[in-house]
Amino acid sequence: MNSTSLSLRARNTPSSPIRRLAYLAAAARAAGTRVHHLNIGQPDVQTPQEFFDGVSLYQEKVLSYEISKGNERLCSAWSSYMNRTLGLATRSDDFLVTMGASEALIFVFMTCCDPGDEVIVFDPTYANYIGFAAISGVTLRPIPCSLEENFKLPSREVILNAVNERTKAILLCSPNNPTGTVYSREELSLLRDICEEREIFLIVDETYREFVYDRKEPLSIFHLAPEDERVIVIDSLSKRFSLCGARVGCLVTTNREVLATALHLAQARLAGPTIEQIAASHMLETISSDFVEESRREYERRREAIFQAFSEIEGVTLHKPSGAFYALVRLPVADAEDFCKFMLTDVSKDGCTTFLAPGAGFYIGDGEGRDIIRVAYVLNSEDIKEAVGAVGYGLEKYKSQR
Amino acid sequence: MNSTSLSLRARNTPSSPIRRLAYLAAAARAAGTRVHHLNIGQPDVQTPQEFFDGVSLYQEKVLSYEISKGNERLCSAWSSYMNRTLGLATRSDDFLVTMGASEALIFVFMTCCDPGDEVIVFDPTYANYIGFAAISGVTLRPIPCSLEENFKLPSREVILNAVNERTKAILLCSPNNPTGTVYSREELSLLRDICEEREIFLIVDETYREFVYDRKEPLSIFHLAPEDERVIVIDSLSKRFSLCGARVGCLVTTNREVLATALHLAQARLAGPTIEQIAASHMLETISSDFVEESRREYERRREAIFQAFSEIEGVTLHKPSGAFYALVRLPVADAEDFCKFMLTDVSKDGCTTFLAPGAGFYIGDGEGRDIIRVAYVLNSEDIKEAVGAVGYGLEKYKSQR
Repeated sequence: MNSTSLSLRARNTPSSPIRRLAYLAAAARAAGTRVHHLNIGQPDVQTPQEFFDGVSLYQEKVLSYEISKGNERLCSAWSSYMNRTLGLATRSDDFLVTMGASEALIFVFMTCCDPGDEVIVFDPTYANYIGFAAISGVTLRPIPCSLEENFKLPSREVILNAVNERTKAILLCSPNNPTGTVYSREELSLLRDICEEREIFLIVDETYREFVYDRKEPLSIFHLAPEDERVIVIDSLSKRFSLCGARVGCLVTTNREVLATALHLAQARLAGPTIEQIAASHMLETISSDFVEESRREYERRREAIFQAFSEIEGVTLHKPSGAFYALVRLPVADAEDFCKFMLTDVSKDGCTTFLAPGAGFYIGDGEGRDIIRVAYVLNSEDIKEAVGAVGYGLEKYKSQR
Repeated sequence: MNSTSLSLRARNTPSSPIRRLAYLAAAARAAGTRVHHLNIGQPDVQTPQEFFDGVSLYQEKVLSYEISKGNERLCSAWSSYMNRTLGLATRSDDFLVTMGASEALIFVFMTCCDPGDEVIVFDPTYANYIGFAAISGVTLRPIPCSLEENFKLPSREVILNAVNERTKAILLCSPNNPTGTVYSREELSLLRDICEEREIFLIVDETYREFVYDRKEPLSIFHLAPEDERVIVIDSLSKRFSLCGARVGCLVTTNREVLATALHLAQARLAGPTIEQIAASHMLETISSDFVEESRREYERRREAIFQAFSEIEGVTLHKPSGAFYALVRLPVADAEDFCKFMLTDVSKDGCTTFLAPGAGFYIGDGEGRDIIRVAYVLNSEDIKEAVGAVGYGLEKYKSQR
């Protein structure tokens, strides 16, 4: 059989820039090198005991299907948690539980867009949005934001210019993966106004909502527009509660039609995993808000550590991120992907190297981000220091060899 | 906002015939009626203790992402289990772990087909295949099979006639959901030959592989074509091990290109749930083959019970199914969906009623299956007797009222 047998869309779905060098990391580990993972947003923060308690509390004899919409108790617990911790007034009925934020975004793309329709995103963008778009046949329309201007949103005119008759939505990750940008109330309001004026959806991925620094308060689009039927929030327990492996996300909207239509997609895949939904209910019902606040403080410390460590390397450009746990870093190399590979194949400083994500995979614009890497500061400050130290060492070695 | 804002494809994704009357069942329960579920393939067989032991063995402090391809230990355990119990020679590398068979089928449709491409199915077909096709923009080309002929596959000529230049695959559920048909070695060979001749894929959903009766042996397409790169097997732990809520499925193929391409889709959604994959590994490594054999025997008894019970109702047509745990039953009514609703709203026999799935949702052909229901014989024989008794009673009442 030859390759023409496979679909164009699958061949166009990019491999993950976060994961595709994993085979080199495995080889480095096999050769005895300690590999620091700055490539992936996999927190090392301990998962709350309340979640594992919830797993233990599952005592059914038959592990049955959950309902397609997601466990009712979980919808209620999640809604209450948001309302309690953020001062919102969401309703349990506004929730559809999904397998991570990933599935929520795929459902939303498929619900709001037919193949060929467009969704506006800000470039650089979370790499997997590109995959979701390929899967759902949606065209992402990127609006460039620059590292030099700390990735702030462009003007009203620039954004309006990107809206055309095929545009169905604007998608924003807030706080932002991969840039670490926290958007202001004014920026969110601007997007909301544009969506109202142009009759399109505003999809806000709030996976990192609580991870904001410098005494900022978490800001949900629901603070500005609690009843707006154009607003769809994507949420996830993965990062906030160090639950990446649980695959529990949701979409939240007051729009009954979006919920009803997305439910058909949810029915087609039957249901999400049962045990995690029950465990997550128990966790959200019993956990203190201190858990997230302590994680937040820890990430704020790590942000200082990573910013400090990179600032000491010559020829590197980065801004201090104000939220989430990512930063984009411009390196003094022509091809950051080649350098990321080099780190895994040729670098060992005191027995360590560092797995970095090439930045180009986070850009839709052709040729953008080639000298950039994304780092996830999900390690403790000591490890971050060692990991970035290995990058500095690697850059010296790379320069001398290329 | 008006409904034109939502996508055509989402509006075209049908609601599940298995699940869409759940609200009426909930209302019946709330009114104090005991509702027997013959609508859904949710076994009441106890989940193996080995699975729950595997859950308890999970002692990591951080619930991290699994790798996108699926847990390596699980791939290896699953491959060994298949080889050991079926005398096959699959390799761990042939496996990609998915969130249930549902996700495996979505990945395969997206990998093999671009929007507008066709997949041949036999009609009636598993209702969710229609949903997967809508999601992936694939056109299902149905070849009719009739209840009167016990749903056997049509001739070579009829099947060849359905192949055209857009056909990418034939999809067969074997043993069959919803018909309960077990296909012969000759039927599987015929499909394989056609796929080879026409250079298309053969996708075989073997979720019910071990559930075959009348002293038949489980038959995998890999028994006939162990190295055929056109063959993709879909598998799932849901039914075989009463693990519907675990959402653990896989696709298995020796075709490296299909695996590599499907992996890009898998990376886009990051990973399946971690705990279930580890628990399933433990289960597959330690479970005796008696578990499945005992379930099989129990379903064989239930098949007798349901066949017997329906045979006693006047005007009903069904064949004794030879595999899986479903049967299609022709009722003496014009509109089976209306009757299914009636069962939930108007029928209570000794405090009981029965939730049935309307058959039309399992047919692609327009107007087909309107007088048919699908039943899943997943209850013990006593409950089946009571459930089908309520159907007989309901039919009497329905006739007298309409």
